[in-house]
Amino acid sequence: MNTLSHTLPSVDAVRIALAERSYDILIGGGLLDRACSWTGLPRAATALIVSNTTVAPLYLARVKAQLQLHYKQVLQLELDDGEAYKDWASLNRIADTLLAAAADRKTVLFALGGGVVGDMTGFAAAIYMRGVPFVQIPTTLLSQVDSSVGGKTAINHPLGKNMLGAFYQPERVIADLDTLDTLPARELSAGLAEVIKYGPIADASFLDWLEANLPALLARDKQALAYAVRRSCEIKAAVVGQDEREQGLRAILNFGHTFGHAIETGLGYGEWLHGEAVGCGMVLASDLSVRLGLMPGSFLTRMTRLIQAAGLPVKAPDLGTSRYLELMRMDKKSEAGEIRFVVIEALGRAGMRSASDELVNEVLQAHLA
Amino acid sequence: MNTLSHTLPSVDAVRIALAERSYDILIGGGLLDRACSWTGLPRAATALIVSNTTVAPLYLARVKAQLQLHYKQVLQLELDDGEAYKDWASLNRIADTLLAAAADRKTVLFALGGGVVGDMTGFAAAIYMRGVPFVQIPTTLLSQVDSSVGGKTAINHPLGKNMLGAFYQPERVIADLDTLDTLPARELSAGLAEVIKYGPIADASFLDWLEANLPALLARDKQALAYAVRRSCEIKAAVVGQDEREQGLRAILNFGHTFGHAIETGLGYGEWLHGEAVGCGMVLASDLSVRLGLMPGSFLTRMTRLIQAAGLPVKAPDLGTSRYLELMRMDKKSEAGEIRFVVIEALGRAGMRSASDELVNEVLQAHLA
Repeated sequence: MNTLSHTLPSVDAVRIALAERSYDILIGGGLLDRACSWTGLPRAATALIVSNTTVAPLYLARVKAQLQLHYKQVLQLELDDGEAYKDWASLNRIADTLLAAAADRKTVLFALGGGVVGDMTGFAAAIYMRGVPFVQIPTTLLSQVDSSVGGKTAINHPLGKNMLGAFYQPERVIADLDTLDTLPARELSAGLAEVIKYGPIADASFLDWLEANLPALLARDKQALAYAVRRSCEIKAAVVGQDEREQGLRAILNFGHTFGHAIETGLGYGEWLHGEAVGCGMVLASDLSVRLGLMPGSFLTRMTRLIQAAGLPVKAPDLGTSRYLELMRMDKKSEAGEIRFVVIEALGRAGMRSASDELVNEVLQAHLA
Repeated sequence: MNTLSHTLPSVDAVRIALAERSYDILIGGGLLDRACSWTGLPRAATALIVSNTTVAPLYLARVKAQLQLHYKQVLQLELDDGEAYKDWASLNRIADTLLAAAADRKTVLFALGGGVVGDMTGFAAAIYMRGVPFVQIPTTLLSQVDSSVGGKTAINHPLGKNMLGAFYQPERVIADLDTLDTLPARELSAGLAEVIKYGPIADASFLDWLEANLPALLARDKQALAYAVRRSCEIKAAVVGQDEREQGLRAILNFGHTFGHAIETGLGYGEWLHGEAVGCGMVLASDLSVRLGLMPGSFLTRMTRLIQAAGLPVKAPDLGTSRYLELMRMDKKSEAGEIRFVVIEALGRAGMRSASDELVNEVLQAHLA
């Protein structure tokens, strides 16, 4: 990759202001090779770059070259690629690597990859010696817009997604848009699902912008991507800033996720990408919003069209409606067995509702493949 | 156990004031059966009592009877007893139990047992669905004076003790002194190690009190125990309140622990009790303080005599001095391979020092069995 072509790219920074700690999300091209991306981070003797077998061959050497200017010992670990490996065994490989190298409690962890690498590395940082600093270097659109903000880290459990984890904030997020050049089209679409989400839940004009700019986003136009990533991070930051520990408001970020998690768990992790499940889940949640009388039928049509145009599935896998209900009752938002859905109350405004099993069945039956 | 004999015992409460959250440590006799011990806790549909195979037969039914007045579903889990089981497998049993019962994110965990049960249950609470509330019911002297304050939770790793964990505060600690009646003498002594620690590091007059009241403590006199538990919790709370995340001052609570952890890891968890290793570790750390010229030789004599009188070992297992050094370099207080020891600078005042391998070797050789 020729880095000379972007020696002076523009860099956006979104400041995430939290009660406990604040940090910057750097957004732009060529960030991996810019010295200023890597200055001012916590000092330590040791750094560990956690990546996966897909991303490491593309970018690890460049990151390592930068980190060797700041840390005496730069360790690396390549995990297997995929949601199926977001488990205790992979997490333990991180701990083993750190302990085998006698990495101390100041060691800085760097997550180079998508959401799976970020979630696991962040969780490892949260619990290694009860907490060491970490930096995110998201290389997928989904992780740039989603895992960059909010401090959610986790691993999966055979009985549920993200069931073991922690709220833990990174020191910095370095979102180099050039890394999206190597992203498979399927993963670009999956990332767009989380981008699209921010329109209906928080910003009606962003939904308009997305409809107009979807072709540019799919063509990986850097300016369009930069705006989409920045606006998504800003909206998420505003929501998370009001509710860091997900006591209430923050739940609206899970629009489409209750159905989506059921799809992922029901099919087995790794069958559908997370963003694909969320895309389809938003169709179902939009329909639920219509059936609850909150939104007009045209809203469902509009959402379905946009999600489909983004290259995402709009038909849900046929797991059987009772299996869906069973899986959704396990959702972290559920309380005392009652499923809580994120619904759209007006364009740009979301809320939480429960719904009768009968109504949920209707929604499911209308969209099963 | 006749609970009528203590229907109106005195109850002490030590308030732990922390930036994020505050809670009470209730200290007294008969607490398990008093309604007021259990009121005002977080409301939820489900509670889980985590205990072990030794403690559960003694107290679990009584705790369960109280909790059934407040929670619809009261689950229970008996882990294997001992430090050797403070591992991922046991932690996962807690997660499995919760997920199998579809326990939601409001579920309250109750740790009924000693430090191992408390550390694991606290860590499980810290990471289950990214955090649920928990309550400690410590049934050993060590856990009443040590794990009650500070919010340290963890599991062990084959390469080091407490290597994976979190800082996570309980909602309440219920320290029923009557549970100490069933404690084996060896464990009572182990608990006294952590009590004794608070004298040299923070309160010279408490060291005097301990020397005078050791016979009463060994005879399990309730008044003496109540004072020892309360004073230990107060001192620890004062230190932790100034340094919740162990950035500096809090490290003084690890007096005797650098040597002690090396003993535990070197012998394999479970050979010596944690308090036994700390007791012996304090002898070594006292000697180091003398050899560094900080304290007179009479201090080592005084500490050795008190620790021995408490029924604790004062001779360290012969792992070889180079193995000790290797293990201590893995200690969480170590930085960039340099071991940091807690030493006594004056009676009632501790500090951190590094020491040459040569000096540490001298200390070890003087005390190896």
